[in-house]
Amino acid sequence: MITDDSRWMTAALALAERTRGRTTPNPNVGCIIVRDDRVIGRGWTQPGGRPHAEAMALAQAGDAARGATAYVTLEPCAHLSARGPACTDLLIAAGIARVAMALGDPDPRTNGQGIARLRAAGVAVAVGLLATDAGRSMAGFLTRRRLGRPFVTLKLATSLDGCIALADGTSRWITGVEARAHAHLERARHEAILVGRGTWEADRPTLDVRLPGLEGRSPQRVVLSSSPSFVIPTNVGIHGHGAAQGSSVPPSMDPGLRRDDEVLVIPSPHAIATLPADHLLVEGGAGTAAAFLAANLVDRLLLYRAPIVIGGGLPAIGAISLTDLGSAHGRWQLHDARQLGSDRLEVYERTPCSPA
Amino acid sequence: MITDDSRWMTAALALAERTRGRTTPNPNVGCIIVRDDRVIGRGWTQPGGRPHAEAMALAQAGDAARGATAYVTLEPCAHLSARGPACTDLLIAAGIARVAMALGDPDPRTNGQGIARLRAAGVAVAVGLLATDAGRSMAGFLTRRRLGRPFVTLKLATSLDGCIALADGTSRWITGVEARAHAHLERARHEAILVGRGTWEADRPTLDVRLPGLEGRSPQRVVLSSSPSFVIPTNVGIHGHGAAQGSSVPPSMDPGLRRDDEVLVIPSPHAIATLPADHLLVEGGAGTAAAFLAANLVDRLLLYRAPIVIGGGLPAIGAISLTDLGSAHGRWQLHDARQLGSDRLEVYERTPCSPA
Repeated sequence: MITDDSRWMTAALALAERTRGRTTPNPNVGCIIVRDDRVIGRGWTQPGGRPHAEAMALAQAGDAARGATAYVTLEPCAHLSARGPACTDLLIAAGIARVAMALGDPDPRTNGQGIARLRAAGVAVAVGLLATDAGRSMAGFLTRRRLGRPFVTLKLATSLDGCIALADGTSRWITGVEARAHAHLERARHEAILVGRGTWEADRPTLDVRLPGLEGRSPQRVVLSSSPSFVIPTNVGIHGHGAAQGSSVPPSMDPGLRRDDEVLVIPSPHAIATLPADHLLVEGGAGTAAAFLAANLVDRLLLYRAPIVIGGGLPAIGAISLTDLGSAHGRWQLHDARQLGSDRLEVYERTPCSPA
Repeated sequence: MITDDSRWMTAALALAERTRGRTTPNPNVGCIIVRDDRVIGRGWTQPGGRPHAEAMALAQAGDAARGATAYVTLEPCAHLSARGPACTDLLIAAGIARVAMALGDPDPRTNGQGIARLRAAGVAVAVGLLATDAGRSMAGFLTRRRLGRPFVTLKLATSLDGCIALADGTSRWITGVEARAHAHLERARHEAILVGRGTWEADRPTLDVRLPGLEGRSPQRVVLSSSPSFVIPTNVGIHGHGAAQGSSVPPSMDPGLRRDDEVLVIPSPHAIATLPADHLLVEGGAGTAAAFLAANLVDRLLLYRAPIVIGGGLPAIGAISLTDLGSAHGRWQLHDARQLGSDRLEVYERTPCSPA
């Protein structure tokens, strides 16, 4: 049943999407302040993590906030920070009468204390409104808190028969412009993007966001290479495993690399825990996809499928040591399916009962 | 816009589905007779091709047909046959005032003459109502008329990454019970079902319809084998290429074969023209799928996809000698997508502009 409460929380969740992938280490929270059925303040966590959504919405509402209801996608913080006051205190000081929140904050500095402090001040509190949607909205922050690693999306662009290229490696283009634009929008929602060394060396992918107005949202590039001798050429700054200075490729001959950017190298999928990112987009190739799946490190599948048949092409996913079909079932559930031009997008998520 | 006319024609098309795959060499036609907004007669081509839909509907309507409108999915036949009178004459004799039809009949014995004779008798005629849907409904009959071969559906049951089995060949089960039941319903709508020799020998598939009440609708089994020495064991009757009597496999040891049945063997995809069938279902394996696609002999793709990842499994479709991605585009369009339990069904059709 759609209630007024769930309608307002849906609006708060939409605001929270605006900075997904840009608020690390803070969660991307959305907030709507409503009085007499009218929105008087809207806020979302700003890039870099501050100001918080509640502070922004309260500043907009001003004195009108007295007696109003605040819809927040996460429990307001209860801890003072050098970067700003606790949102719980701001809400109380503004005279908010009721706070409806989707999720409690797992941060041990808040974790129920925001709720307790609000109630102690006489503010009505409701918890759990659209909790599932909020969990999806803040998947990066929550996965980092619970599992100590980023939330991982594996993106595949295939033909109907599951191929990512012709047998000779040709892959331009399988999907159309609409699907590719959507994939770039997904990049803009991730702090980091990863490909395997083979894809890096073969395609020299730029891995940037090529959408008007979003050029500045390109994610941190990461290459997976188990070889300690793997070298990123000199025109790219390097951090992490395998770091070494190469010199053989002049920048002008290497359009896939951008000067002044950094490329991180990690030796195994488990090393994603060390990345400065809460959302990681894995873009291939087949061996890298298999490595992440075999390590049970994929939370979401983003499948772009073109209405073409390749036949005998390169498969999207390499061997993952699956020994029986029974164990393959029950791990994924369809979350979204839509048409993008002539292509089809399907989003699968790890099922709640599937261990991460 | 949905008009009364299109609503009644939709009902006639639904009736036509009842005997799809069982009216060869006649088309599966549906007919509804309507007077004063009430249905007074319903008919569909009976198994074997007679009586025709119009004759059945008129018999139901009786004298009430005078002044009524008949909705027919195909132009009523204008030719007398040893098996029955011409439907055009029956409609005129019954006093039908108006005939709305979806498609003209390409049969040279009718081909416009049904329309002409109705009009000459003072019956109002409308042609072209839901013509696209009718073309889909009678695809088998029309493909046989236009191209001299059956309408071919290629069925694939795959994982999300396009695999039809684990690397060791294990394929039970990828899809769930709902998808498998749907696939059996599709079998019941086809006169013939084909697998390659490799699949036949490896799996000994029964290829029958295992749905309560539809056991009698199992299609004619066909095996594709280019080897002239390929032998079907003695407990199965044989026609066609490669026919020879084997003797090494006692029936009791071969549950995949049914005594008293016939299995036809054809040496190449093009030989489907000789099959006594207007609808052919191709069920695999990868080499056979590739052979039909490479020969441009697939009209419809039936993709059942389970929400599982196999990784490094057997691909659904073998090499089809595609040399550039550009030529793969524009051949297929999505006609239907639906959920079957936890699996997804997608139906793709050859695009109208793609040459057959």
